Amino acid sequence: MTATNRQARLAARPVGMPKRSDWNFVDEPVPDPREGELLVKVTHISLDPAMRGWMNEGKSYIRPVAIDEVMRAGAAGRVVASKHPNFREGDEVAGNFGVQQFAISDGKGVRKVDTKFAPLERYLGALGMPGMTAYFGLLDIGKPKPGETVVVSGAAGAVGAVVGQIAKIKGCRVIGIAGGADKCEYIRELGFDAAIDYKAGDVKVGLKNHCPDGIHVFFDNVGGEILDAALARIAMRARIIICGAISQYNNTTPVKGPSNYLSLLVNRASMTGMVVFDYADRYGEAAKEMAGWIAAGKLHAKEDVVQGGIDAFPDVLLKLFKGENFGKLVLAV
Amino acid sequence: MTATNRQARLAARPVGMPKRSDWNFVDEPVPDPREGELLVKVTHISLDPAMRGWMNEGKSYIRPVAIDEVMRAGAAGRVVASKHPNFREGDEVAGNFGVQQFAISDGKGVRKVDTKFAPLERYLGALGMPGMTAYFGLLDIGKPKPGETVVVSGAAGAVGAVVGQIAKIKGCRVIGIAGGADKCEYIRELGFDAAIDYKAGDVKVGLKNHCPDGIHVFFDNVGGEILDAALARIAMRARIIICGAISQYNNTTPVKGPSNYLSLLVNRASMTGMVVFDYADRYGEAAKEMAGWIAAGKLHAKEDVVQGGIDAFPDVLLKLFKGENFGKLVLAV
Repeated sequence: MTATNRQARLAARPVGMPKRSDWNFVDEPVPDPREGELLVKVTHISLDPAMRGWMNEGKSYIRPVAIDEVMRAGAAGRVVASKHPNFREGDEVAGNFGVQQFAISDGKGVRKVDTKFAPLERYLGALGMPGMTAYFGLLDIGKPKPGETVVVSGAAGAVGAVVGQIAKIKGCRVIGIAGGADKCEYIRELGFDAAIDYKAGDVKVGLKNHCPDGIHVFFDNVGGEILDAALARIAMRARIIICGAISQYNNTTPVKGPSNYLSLLVNRASMTGMVVFDYADRYGEAAKEMAGWIAAGKLHAKEDVVQGGIDAFPDVLLKLFKGENFGKLVLAV
Repeated sequence: MTATNRQARLAARPVGMPKRSDWNFVDEPVPDPREGELLVKVTHISLDPAMRGWMNEGKSYIRPVAIDEVMRAGAAGRVVASKHPNFREGDEVAGNFGVQQFAISDGKGVRKVDTKFAPLERYLGALGMPGMTAYFGLLDIGKPKPGETVVVSGAAGAVGAVVGQIAKIKGCRVIGIAGGADKCEYIRELGFDAAIDYKAGDVKVGLKNHCPDGIHVFFDNVGGEILDAALARIAMRARIIICGAISQYNNTTPVKGPSNYLSLLVNRASMTGMVVFDYADRYGEAAKEMAGWIAAGKLHAKEDVVQGGIDAFPDVLLKLFKGENFGKLVLAV
């Protein structure tokens, strides 16, 4: 092969918001797959809040991206050459392919997807990691019961929108917290019982109005003041799922801890962290159920697909942290 | 009866540390018990960190003590008159009798105790609410497994000392955090594997040295920086029990939330609040097992009994918040 493979490689560990100079853009020859490997032409790259954490040094749930390593990213594309028994040329696949045009893979964590059922980008959203995160975080940790009140932050995001819809499917009252009138309108259209616009008013007041019996399950993607507002409003034996804290990822000062954490004591409540990778052996079960809900029109998904080259990656990523994306953010390369 | 009943009644809601003027001391005639009631001569009053919270206005796990109400307190004493079918004169009892010399009770929450087995003050400590708190918090929420590392803050206190000893009985490695060399020596004598003196050095460093495989169960009575230090050191799927936060109770500034709470996510850990009253229907089961451990010499208890009148209550209470007590703090009136 003579084509080149453009890649974004981590150049520096960002301080605060990531900037273009935190990556190097390099061209390499596209490698040939060896025995047991496949070569994927990447067409869709997933942009996720968790990426910010992967750029930091230090112990976390996954090793940091090394300096000069291709930036880690979930992605989807088409197999263009295969010496792997389970994949063949033309297969459409999703996996951890990185921010690059072509990826070599040993097949680990790669799954075939069906673009007749849903567009490729959806396998990076509702039918991908964000969907799995919503499914297992809500159902396995949150354990919502019919009639309970479920609140989700980042409610118009890739994870949050699915959390709210599954909670509705399970018979709960669902309140979403999102930024801006458009996002609030969107989640109402998805069937949320109410939306709180954190940019337009006090979240504490909104939660008080919309959760007269308290919050039974709070699914948090945001952290900071929104977590504190929710803690102030939890019901007895509430379950809080700590999925992320996008408000804190680009801090240059220490993370804001939840001042209201003693509400856990008063209400005998729990706050539990989750990482979707722990559920890898159950992705199939979840994907099947989610596909059923999509087919039945009970679960809707929205992607914010930005067209651009590999070099567009830093700017597109910033949309996430500025809350500018609307639906699952994907870079189509 | 012509005797008087001296009482401490709440006069004001304290700001910061409680002070003498937050109570009024009044003398009332000792009332006669009516049908179904008993009269207790209070001899031992329990001083508990939770008392500080009961003095605040606002929703909590129990209603606040009202202004002009007798200050709520666990206590023990002797029945001096009874028109209650289950109690008779001379019975030794423990219950919620308040900060006063005599208490009228309908028998609810009152239990007979056996001073041939243990001194009366112990029924306010290891064989009372603190012991129950330790037992259910550690075993029901912490669920420690043999070989796991259990860390407890306020380790020389009424709850902490019992937590550590039960964890040892269950086959765990146990590290206690306490203030001062004497307290650290004491918990080592109780069988703790190590003690960290938070007054003498950096708790983070101590936890790093003593918990090479991380903390599996953290039982927190203290909050603040110690909770943050523990969060930074938890193992995968760790369980944190939020029992109290004595470092924060007298704050005049907002509670310090745990900045390291995202460690819950990284480690798929949980933080759960507990209130001992929820286990009331299982106190008997716990008391029986604890008494067995005491009789077998596996569980030791220490009380810090201060002699004084009802008027001594404010000063004795402050010993708790200054960390000056050594063992379960009791006022013998």
